[in-house]
Amino acid sequence: MGYLDQIQTPEDLRKLALDQLPQLCDELRHFIIEQTAKHPGHLGSSLGVIELTVAIHYVFDTPNDKLVWDVGHQAYCHKILTGRKDQFSTNRCYNGISGFPRREESEYDAFGTGHSSTSISAALGMAMAAKMNGDTQRNHIAVIGDGAMTGGMAFEAMNQAAYRDVNMLVILNDNKISIDSSTGAMSKYLLSITASPAYNRFKNRMWNLFTFRSKQSNKITNWFGRLGNGVKGYLLGGSNWFQSLGYRYFGPADGHDVVSLVKTLRDLKKLPGQKVLHILTIKGKGLEMAEQHQTAYHAPGKFDPSTGQIIQPECGNMPPKYQDVFGHTILEIAQQDEKVVGITPAMATGCSLTIMDEVFPDRVFDVGIAEQHAVTFSAGLAAEGYIPFCNIYSSFLQRGYDQVIHDVALQNLPVIFCIDRAGLVGEDGATHQGSFDLAFLRSVPNLIIASPLNEHELRNMMLTAYQNAKDGGLPFVIRYPRGRGVLTDWRNEPEILPIGKSQMLREGEKILVLSLGPLGNNVSAALETLGKENVNAAHLNVRFLKPLDEEVLTTLAVKYPIWLTVEDGTEKGGLFSAVAEFLENNNLTNQLHHIAIPDRFISHGDIPSLYHEVGFGVEDIQQTIRSIWK
Amino acid sequence: MGYLDQIQTPEDLRKLALDQLPQLCDELRHFIIEQTAKHPGHLGSSLGVIELTVAIHYVFDTPNDKLVWDVGHQAYCHKILTGRKDQFSTNRCYNGISGFPRREESEYDAFGTGHSSTSISAALGMAMAAKMNGDTQRNHIAVIGDGAMTGGMAFEAMNQAAYRDVNMLVILNDNKISIDSSTGAMSKYLLSITASPAYNRFKNRMWNLFTFRSKQSNKITNWFGRLGNGVKGYLLGGSNWFQSLGYRYFGPADGHDVVSLVKTLRDLKKLPGQKVLHILTIKGKGLEMAEQHQTAYHAPGKFDPSTGQIIQPECGNMPPKYQDVFGHTILEIAQQDEKVVGITPAMATGCSLTIMDEVFPDRVFDVGIAEQHAVTFSAGLAAEGYIPFCNIYSSFLQRGYDQVIHDVALQNLPVIFCIDRAGLVGEDGATHQGSFDLAFLRSVPNLIIASPLNEHELRNMMLTAYQNAKDGGLPFVIRYPRGRGVLTDWRNEPEILPIGKSQMLREGEKILVLSLGPLGNNVSAALETLGKENVNAAHLNVRFLKPLDEEVLTTLAVKYPIWLTVEDGTEKGGLFSAVAEFLENNNLTNQLHHIAIPDRFISHGDIPSLYHEVGFGVEDIQQTIRSIWK
Repeated sequence: MGYLDQIQTPEDLRKLALDQLPQLCDELRHFIIEQTAKHPGHLGSSLGVIELTVAIHYVFDTPNDKLVWDVGHQAYCHKILTGRKDQFSTNRCYNGISGFPRREESEYDAFGTGHSSTSISAALGMAMAAKMNGDTQRNHIAVIGDGAMTGGMAFEAMNQAAYRDVNMLVILNDNKISIDSSTGAMSKYLLSITASPAYNRFKNRMWNLFTFRSKQSNKITNWFGRLGNGVKGYLLGGSNWFQSLGYRYFGPADGHDVVSLVKTLRDLKKLPGQKVLHILTIKGKGLEMAEQHQTAYHAPGKFDPSTGQIIQPECGNMPPKYQDVFGHTILEIAQQDEKVVGITPAMATGCSLTIMDEVFPDRVFDVGIAEQHAVTFSAGLAAEGYIPFCNIYSSFLQRGYDQVIHDVALQNLPVIFCIDRAGLVGEDGATHQGSFDLAFLRSVPNLIIASPLNEHELRNMMLTAYQNAKDGGLPFVIRYPRGRGVLTDWRNEPEILPIGKSQMLREGEKILVLSLGPLGNNVSAALETLGKENVNAAHLNVRFLKPLDEEVLTTLAVKYPIWLTVEDGTEKGGLFSAVAEFLENNNLTNQLHHIAIPDRFISHGDIPSLYHEVGFGVEDIQQTIRSIWK
Repeated sequence: MGYLDQIQTPEDLRKLALDQLPQLCDELRHFIIEQTAKHPGHLGSSLGVIELTVAIHYVFDTPNDKLVWDVGHQAYCHKILTGRKDQFSTNRCYNGISGFPRREESEYDAFGTGHSSTSISAALGMAMAAKMNGDTQRNHIAVIGDGAMTGGMAFEAMNQAAYRDVNMLVILNDNKISIDSSTGAMSKYLLSITASPAYNRFKNRMWNLFTFRSKQSNKITNWFGRLGNGVKGYLLGGSNWFQSLGYRYFGPADGHDVVSLVKTLRDLKKLPGQKVLHILTIKGKGLEMAEQHQTAYHAPGKFDPSTGQIIQPECGNMPPKYQDVFGHTILEIAQQDEKVVGITPAMATGCSLTIMDEVFPDRVFDVGIAEQHAVTFSAGLAAEGYIPFCNIYSSFLQRGYDQVIHDVALQNLPVIFCIDRAGLVGEDGATHQGSFDLAFLRSVPNLIIASPLNEHELRNMMLTAYQNAKDGGLPFVIRYPRGRGVLTDWRNEPEILPIGKSQMLREGEKILVLSLGPLGNNVSAALETLGKENVNAAHLNVRFLKPLDEEVLTTLAVKYPIWLTVEDGTEKGGLFSAVAEFLENNNLTNQLHHIAIPDRFISHGDIPSLYHEVGFGVEDIQQTIRSIWK
């Protein structure tokens, strides 16, 4: 019987003695490894913050004190300590608990997260609320990784928070990695701090001083504080980023020494105002293979909890992931034309741009968690004759929307957007579903928007987009989902498609199904079965949402009185809307039905469950078609 | 006959002697004041960078060297020196030159701008292109204000650009003001540099050293450089933000000493790699009243060029601006409830949040140019029971789109968005037209979206949104245009509207016009005239785009076979699409026509010309209705 069994809430945790915390951390680590081995999730980042999580809940008065986890995938320990230990086996499952903090799930989840770099803004809002309420005691803690700190939004918040005289503690969880290695100036800066031997020698003495002065009057505190800052600055070569922004900076501290962390947090708790604690952690801490292969163990899938060995799913002759098809295809195109470059905001592995990076490292740019910059940086490259393939996940492109409009589309620069994780993504849930891209991009003038039926078409569309860019054409969007395609012989000889032209997949009678993207394969399967029932609907692979193939649609309107659109995107603004507009603009009275993501946020779960929920499954599609076949 | 008359392009400029440049600057200043007095534009910022502009084009080999103006409203001098002097009287006019750089206008406009904080990303893209081309000589210059530097995107770009070994010079134009005063940590940090007397004494000697060393070998340069950084850091209290990010920092320098600027830029041109030059300028420099009242003279309208006195347009008994109605109304609501707060990303004057700020400065937050943060900060306040009115211009909200989805709508936090400058804005042109908000917001679940017909309705909607937030309702969007309303007795006793309910303004026959927002007044005027021709169309004030008043629409579908939607937004995704979807979902065969912003970018010009171009004028609407009245 360990300590963990005694803990349902942080109240219970606070009953433990300080010297019992290391064992509790061991138990938590064991629990998370055991559970995540069976129920896959974000392992590495959660293992990295066990000591921090325990220390925060031990020292601070959560949920009264507000704790915001940036991104939130590292919050497993937090969930286990705050009443969700028994449900943890349902983590990321359909109808189970979410893999991210959610306000509706627990009062300890002060703010829901999922996307990066939001925590300081949210915590500052809460801190300002406390200040306006006259509450000078409540604490507000944002835990943010060094990767997330490169997101511009975090800087915007740091900029406003400084000098605001609010109780806010920003804990910088520095593990030198986002999902791939962290990149850029912030990363080098943090390394320079932690690598400076002069500073490290000095640090211990400073911490002692600090412990002393936290018991003294404010005046002394300030004086020591200033001395500390000045000397630190000198030792670091005059470059403390946090201090330049008006923050009191403390650290770097060992993020895996829970006893010392507790002492540090107790000291910082007494110190009013906004401050930064910089801690060093190891992603995957405590599972050797996870420590050694941090990208692979970010979210490893199932693994052997004793060895850490990842259990490779039986792939046999399975179709490849769309991601890998993208990766191999951009490499092929890049081998033909040295002007082709690849850009990703911190998702090189996830989107398989690593495949090109291995061959052409100088032509692949991982710009860090920085979607806005990724888009405009691509536009700058395009302005100078390069052909950028900018790969961004659908839900993250929401961060670069203004730049798509203002820097790419308005200037007609031939940037090629490969939008990965488009449509429902599954276990990552509501924050990550790629539900909106078709709708928010369709409104933007000048964009070509395409989605492939399968791997061959993805390759064809990439070649088409490349040729279009080379000819100085319009910006080009290709969206495709997370996960595997449908073809094992995926490596076709790519061909150039006519832009804005659809493809008739099946002739029929009465009903025309218009599908966009890989959901079309479910439509094909559904129609195959229905054909045996003499329900012979026709099937059009729309291919291009924009420009829409109006010529063919006009012809088909005569033959097929009932239309059904099928798309892996919201029902408000995407294919369904485009076809509805087309019918109205042409005064056509065809009946129009639709299968699409309904106008609500879709939670997490396995894809089959989610598909069934929104009517995307083969049988669901059959049922819809049967119901309109009269 | 002055120097300016001899200059058509920078080639001509470079023929002048260095000591002739101050007089040229005087002439340019005189020219801009004379022209802008008659043809209103962005006066203050353009006056502030005359010396800088002259120095850049004098020293660098534009257009081969690439110059990107952040925001771009300060580029008047640039336009005058690069072949557009004779067209400058058409600045911001319909079919005239743009008030911002545009690639299609001149090869000297390396990258089009309008929104803030994009210049470093674009310049870095170009610099990386040069590097990949093996061009080590070409220079890339981004000129960015201290206000724009607070935009997260600029930080994202700074983060990637560091350590990239590209020729990039970031010129920080520090005038301590965005449109309103700059805010936050960056602003204080820059002030701390420039105010440090120790540093200022030291500076002159450093500059001499620098001039010396730029002639020496790289090794010496590096050594001196490092010494400089270390000493600067020490003098500044260990807080050089730029150096912490890996930039060589130079400055601050006097931005109005053109001779010295030329010398400095010549030195920096010899120095490879990425570096920052920090210059101090005065917004409105050279026009006394503009220097003294920088916010008023940001874009003052017509003024007397000799005295600077602004020529107040004859307002008489004109209706108020929607902005002022917003400002007075939020103040009234804030006076009733201390939980009401106002948030703006650097547009306090433009959106008239200043009216509340004068009474409740502690409850108004100007967060700087930081739309992303503004939205999530508002969400944090709402999570703690405050009622935030977050006021953002439509085209700038494109920057906060992910935060609206991820932090507000998904968590159902009752933030009230007041979207200013929605629809066509006029002279600011394509980058600033609020064309897309209806479309990109309609796709987002949980949002209530409304647009008022007039000032009374704006007040009613604000009260409704407030009450809805107080009751823990859904997030609420109110969008309204730039400029004046239609009522002189605007200050009604606000009343709470039923959410999602439309208003019948006029009964009629055959045709139903469905309008959203103030364009409905043009519809009313059009129908008034048409009534005399016995064309008696009905008119519904839709009020709420979401939820749509489906109950009333179902009834009206029976009576009116022909429908016409009218909206000040794109035709792809807004009201027209919503109504088309409604008709299709309900299997209704009413004819549907639309008046909306077409699917292309709309350039700059006066509102009547733009309205006529897209069919929004009263007579245009009449003509459309006549053509469908058969």
